Amino acid sequence: MISLHGHPSGRHFLQIPGPTNVPDRVLRAMHRATIDHRGPEFGGLGRAVLQGMQWVFQTRSPVVIYPSSGTGAWEAALVNTLSPGDRVLMAETGHFAALWQRLATRLGLDVEILEGDWRHGADPARIEARLAADAGHRIKAVCVVHNETSTGAVTDVAQVRQAIDRSGHPALLMVDAISSLGAMDYRHDEWGVDVGVAGSQKGLMLPPGLSFNALSERALRAAASARLPRSYWDWSAMLALNEGGYFPYTPATTLLYGLHEALDMLRAEGLERVFARHRRLAQATRAAVRAWGLELVCQDPAACSNALTAVLMPDGHSADALRKVILDRYDMSLGQGLGRWSGKIFRIAHLGDFNDLSLCGALAGVEMGLAAAGVPHRPGGVQAALDYLARPAAGLHEKG
Amino acid sequence: MISLHGHPSGRHFLQIPGPTNVPDRVLRAMHRATIDHRGPEFGGLGRAVLQGMQWVFQTRSPVVIYPSSGTGAWEAALVNTLSPGDRVLMAETGHFAALWQRLATRLGLDVEILEGDWRHGADPARIEARLAADAGHRIKAVCVVHNETSTGAVTDVAQVRQAIDRSGHPALLMVDAISSLGAMDYRHDEWGVDVGVAGSQKGLMLPPGLSFNALSERALRAAASARLPRSYWDWSAMLALNEGGYFPYTPATTLLYGLHEALDMLRAEGLERVFARHRRLAQATRAAVRAWGLELVCQDPAACSNALTAVLMPDGHSADALRKVILDRYDMSLGQGLGRWSGKIFRIAHLGDFNDLSLCGALAGVEMGLAAAGVPHRPGGVQAALDYLARPAAGLHEKG
Amino acid sequence: MISLHGHPSGRHFLQIPGPTNVPDRVLRAMHRATIDHRGPEFGGLGRAVLQGMQWVFQTRSPVVIYPSSGTGAWEAALVNTLSPGDRVLMAETGHFAALWQRLATRLGLDVEILEGDWRHGADPARIEARLAADAGHRIKAVCVVHNETSTGAVTDVAQVRQAIDRSGHPALLMVDAISSLGAMDYRHDEWGVDVGVAGSQKGLMLPPGLSFNALSERALRAAASARLPRSYWDWSAMLALNEGGYFPYTPATTLLYGLHEALDMLRAEGLERVFARHRRLAQATRAAVRAWGLELVCQDPAACSNALTAVLMPDGHSADALRKVILDRYDMSLGQGLGRWSGKIFRIAHLGDFNDLSLCGALAGVEMGLAAAGVPHRPGGVQAALDYLARPAAGLHEKG
Amino acid sequence: MISLHGHPSGRHFLQIPGPTNVPDRVLRAMHRATIDHRGPEFGGLGRAVLQGMQWVFQTRSPVVIYPSSGTGAWEAALVNTLSPGDRVLMAETGHFAALWQRLATRLGLDVEILEGDWRHGADPARIEARLAADAGHRIKAVCVVHNETSTGAVTDVAQVRQAIDRSGHPALLMVDAISSLGAMDYRHDEWGVDVGVAGSQKGLMLPPGLSFNALSERALRAAASARLPRSYWDWSAMLALNEGGYFPYTPATTLLYGLHEALDMLRAEGLERVFARHRRLAQATRAAVRAWGLELVCQDPAACSNALTAVLMPDGHSADALRKVILDRYDMSLGQGLGRWSGKIFRIAHLGDFNDLSLCGALAGVEMGLAAAGVPHRPGGVQAALDYLARPAAGLHEKG
Repeated sequence: MISLHGHPSGRHFLQIPGPTNVPDRVLRAMHRATIDHRGPEFGGLGRAVLQGMQWVFQTRSPVVIYPSSGTGAWEAALVNTLSPGDRVLMAETGHFAALWQRLATRLGLDVEILEGDWRHGADPARIEARLAADAGHRIKAVCVVHNETSTGAVTDVAQVRQAIDRSGHPALLMVDAISSLGAMDYRHDEWGVDVGVAGSQKGLMLPPGLSFNALSERALRAAASARLPRSYWDWSAMLALNEGGYFPYTPATTLLYGLHEALDMLRAEGLERVFARHRRLAQATRAAVRAWGLELVCQDPAACSNALTAVLMPDGHSADALRKVILDRYDMSLGQGLGRWSGKIFRIAHLGDFNDLSLCGALAGVEMGLAAAGVPHRPGGVQAALDYLARPAAGLHEKG
Repeated sequence: MISLHGHPSGRHFLQIPGPTNVPDRVLRAMHRATIDHRGPEFGGLGRAVLQGMQWVFQTRSPVVIYPSSGTGAWEAALVNTLSPGDRVLMAETGHFAALWQRLATRLGLDVEILEGDWRHGADPARIEARLAADAGHRIKAVCVVHNETSTGAVTDVAQVRQAIDRSGHPALLMVDAISSLGAMDYRHDEWGVDVGVAGSQKGLMLPPGLSFNALSERALRAAASARLPRSYWDWSAMLALNEGGYFPYTPATTLLYGLHEALDMLRAEGLERVFARHRRLAQATRAAVRAWGLELVCQDPAACSNALTAVLMPDGHSADALRKVILDRYDMSLGQGLGRWSGKIFRIAHLGDFNDLSLCGALAGVEMGLAAAGVPHRPGGVQAALDYLARPAAGLHEKG
Repeated sequence: MISLHGHPSGRHFLQIPGPTNVPDRVLRAMHRATIDHRGPEFGGLGRAVLQGMQWVFQTRSPVVIYPSSGTGAWEAALVNTLSPGDRVLMAETGHFAALWQRLATRLGLDVEILEGDWRHGADPARIEARLAADAGHRIKAVCVVHNETSTGAVTDVAQVRQAIDRSGHPALLMVDAISSLGAMDYRHDEWGVDVGVAGSQKGLMLPPGLSFNALSERALRAAASARLPRSYWDWSAMLALNEGGYFPYTPATTLLYGLHEALDMLRAEGLERVFARHRRLAQATRAAVRAWGLELVCQDPAACSNALTAVLMPDGHSADALRKVILDRYDMSLGQGLGRWSGKIFRIAHLGDFNDLSLCGALAGVEMGLAAAGVPHRPGGVQAALDYLARPAAGLHEKG
Repeated sequence: MISLHGHPSGRHFLQIPGPTNVPDRVLRAMHRATIDHRGPEFGGLGRAVLQGMQWVFQTRSPVVIYPSSGTGAWEAALVNTLSPGDRVLMAETGHFAALWQRLATRLGLDVEILEGDWRHGADPARIEARLAADAGHRIKAVCVVHNETSTGAVTDVAQVRQAIDRSGHPALLMVDAISSLGAMDYRHDEWGVDVGVAGSQKGLMLPPGLSFNALSERALRAAASARLPRSYWDWSAMLALNEGGYFPYTPATTLLYGLHEALDMLRAEGLERVFARHRRLAQATRAAVRAWGLELVCQDPAACSNALTAVLMPDGHSADALRKVILDRYDMSLGQGLGRWSGKIFRIAHLGDFNDLSLCGALAGVEMGLAAAGVPHRPGGVQAALDYLARPAAGLHEKG
């Protein structure tokens, strides 16, 4: 596989919204001999990362760690809490919401979709109305994606919670926080989320291979009577062994080493500062997009993602052609358009282990790529980002 | 987590039967920036490892790679081929066979157990008799564990195949090759296995986090009509995207880098030589156990595992006390007794990236530990292993 | 040492003119168990890197590799070829030339300095005149720095050679190629250099710790009669053992692993393309400096370095204050002013494993830093670099 | 270079007396981006390792760190303290002592050799006698090798100091502690050593590439008037910059990262325990040699090295043939005979990051190799080592 060895000079710019750039510290932490997953040393590691994940989710409820990709954690959320034929209300905010729906359908659930235009977050008012109309409480769960990775539009989870509460409906609230956790504020307990779903390869700065369910008391009660068949994803065996820091089957040890290190890094920076840094980089990116005269996919200014920015191509121009030019000339990977946005948008991730100067390099690659691909735009996007980032605002860019 | 940094001097001897020692080459291969799992470079990696896994399984049928532990691949084998209430015949050769049974039951299958004494492989004659008696073909699958990791007893899969064939029964044959693949000869096509199950952390010398299903034409046909709910484990989406070297959800990229390297190592050594090396190290280990005057768990000399050796403790002596002494004094981890063997046996792995001198060190640790723990035994086990390994037999120990 | 672990988010921009950024491939290659430096495997490694260094130096004469920093190779060049009291003519092009002079003086040589203004390369005409005046051939060697790392001004070595030849003088020509080798064209044989001096941590993309002497027939003849005491630096023992790929004392094995990998990378890119890439990045940098309205240290447009760019601060502004602001706010290290330029200039390295987008990020850091530090300048430097780099010129930016 | 990638299965046993096995922790610590060696972060690193080296040398005087191999530190010791033609008294205890003598001669010193049989340490009484006879104090320095790596015989440095003191002679005492530091007790201040010489690749568990001089007040005074030409090795520039943790020329940054980590490991274990561990492993090795009926090179039982064991071959048998068999069959590197011992002895290192079970593996390789090579010996060496190591003595083998 020559290509893995024959890369061009300098560092590849990986600006897809996950997997994100793995910090050297995390790679180093994973470069370590495997240990006995039933031995005493492992228990300490297990307890530390389980507690650390509670801290990241901002919850006192247990967090379950799976050796799987994030898709597995979607499945786990459903099979642990629901029974065949149960109705779930799912807000279709974009491609990943649609994939979660398809997964639910395959598992034998009765999926009711709140359609969306893939340019906004989920609408709390519509959720409230729908639940209010469900007098028989046939709906067992409401599922929303916090940060829709395919569009860069954010759902206000706190408002969804309030909508559910106002409707007096007992449905569980399940939230996909896959691309928000560790990048944007996610408050599992305060927002009353019942199952939070996350993965390792976004704000947690790890390679893919771990996924997470953050639980609640209500979710655990639901699990006691849920009848979808489950074994690998079953919470109960997990929780029993997690007490001692162990797992019911062989965990992905090296990724847990990496998680331990990533948690250390997040703790050292502080969640508040992590979120502020993402906000700052996102604002600089949006300033660049505006300066180029291009249009954001997300149409709600209050809901624009701090993890990634999705940009609409001018009519008649292919986002994939642009991405190819940028990859070939400037060695940068951007996110592609997914589902109905295929070929029509590109996505710039500013997520994970990332900073001002790397963002400037990434935006420079986009601006030069737009020119090289003949995409109509105004120059000056990088300059606009510089102007934003050079402001002495908020002390965010001071070294800790 | 002080313990990860404060290890004692020298190298820990990790002699559990998985996770095995990860070669430095594989760790290095994994110490690499994540790449875009939808980009062109990734496709080459994906195709290479998918083809490599066919080579290891000795099959022309597709192999599916999951980001999960081996337990997930057990589940995948069942949910892709069976429907709720289907009967499966499972040979209870030890703890892992029992865990697979429990998993099948949880998934809603009707599990019929062929009980065993946890000291032998599965008995082909009993399987044949049971299938012959199943005139209505209620049994949909026969499940055996090739190398029972909890006992070190091997099931002769080729004979199981012949038994099924002789009975004229259409049941699928599913084989857990988790601790045999890459260590002992496993011939998926020649033996007519329908679903082979494996994991990354044994003979493949990787950290845990990947698992595998090797398929067959018949398994794929069964999948077309199987009705157990499935999404994460579903073969069809996998196979569609695997064509180009891609995956339907984010794969565990760094483990795939490692797999690529491990396959290179296995290819360089050659499967025949890999198997011969494991045989040689196993024979030396058994010579040591005999010299100590201890008893093997496996009572069938023709079925003793080349991947690990399970040893019975003399009455009244705790295997866990012995293991603790050995860990504390000699910094070696041995496998514990599982299930009904808990506390009564210990297991010495000689599996994966391993050689003569490391085995001698490991056996030295056992012999000194037996003395330190006051376990009745004869000295001379290491010497017996040396005598075996020093023979000029077979040229196995000549450097390539 | 908390600081090594507590770095801020994202990647540090190391833009000092050496040590340069070590590519991940090279770090991985060095992450390897030490081998017996007298064993057969080592010989292959030794021969490969010795031959590779001849290729980089563009010479058929031997290259000597020292476990030392580049300063050691300066010393080695002198002690192997000269005798106590020998006169050497050294062109004072900047701080490193001055350091080499001081070193020569300490070794007991009679150093004659061709003074310079630290803003130009060495003047061949002055060298020719001086040699022509040295009828008695008291001058034994002419020493010049190819790429003066402290000023970014290049000496035309081919012209120096011609100057010496025209004068008919037998002096040896010694060239410091420490920051040019592997970044700018250096032709040891074609230019008739007698001793070329280099280090590992610049264009060779390694950590510091190796240095080099490229020899010539005349240098070897001089060594036969040179009387400065020497042992560690002695070429003869080196050359004898280098035949088999070995060294007279323990070599820095891990750095040799890294050198092997770095040579592979340089070969894959091709020296021509490596030099063109450096030229391209340098031109973009100079475009930025011009746009900012700042002055280059190097006053000869034909002699501006492609490895680094040294920039004069406006009067009354401290380069070190600027560098501190940039380090604190934007996590980038720039080169400081050295010797007479201390505090008055800063240096931007664009050397080694480096590419367009990283350069854009680095220039963004400078531009934002100039603003933050209140240094008078015009904005638009980054934009000017973008404009240059976006040109479809020369196909340099196409992926290999 | 296929060989670096195509190694046989399992871990190579590197049992040469340096370079020793580099712990994974140290390799990881070195797998790190280079930092600005003039920046603030570097100063902290520099101060930490300089202080750490004082702790290892057990001195309050400064320690100088060179980017060079140990041979460089030999040269540094001499050129900093002596003048051309100065007489030095050097005890010829083996090959490395002889190499140091040759080096001194090349530097223009007048070397007086105290001849030895290469089977003992230096004789304090002969040193005393020689100094007593040197009424004119022509001898400026006495040089001894603490642990002669070529023979495994130790010189009692404290007694050498007393011998010098008794003679009332002002000569400096220089000690090569290259293969003892970090493995055997070396007390720079208590023993009154003036210059201690060491390298990174032995007890300090690093790759080669760093060397050390530990100084004394008297050595510094001698340096003030010494007239051997020096620049690279010059202490004064070093000491001036070391105050802030910096160096006068580019240091070998990555090796300093490794040194920092290795010092942490030594501190965690504690020097007393490090020395006890080496003693224990050495005694087990000598028990094995005795059991084989082979002869130690070192004829003084009180002076046998705890870092390595040199073994005489029976007449008519080639040590190099034995070493080749062992390398080819058992993938272990042993030390060769050097100088007058070439082909006649082999050396087993038990030095650095090493433990009981690895030693047992190494001794097993020797015992099987002796058989394979047809070298007359009694079996049972490994057993003898086991018997020794299994004793509950001294609590040395309990995990910290």
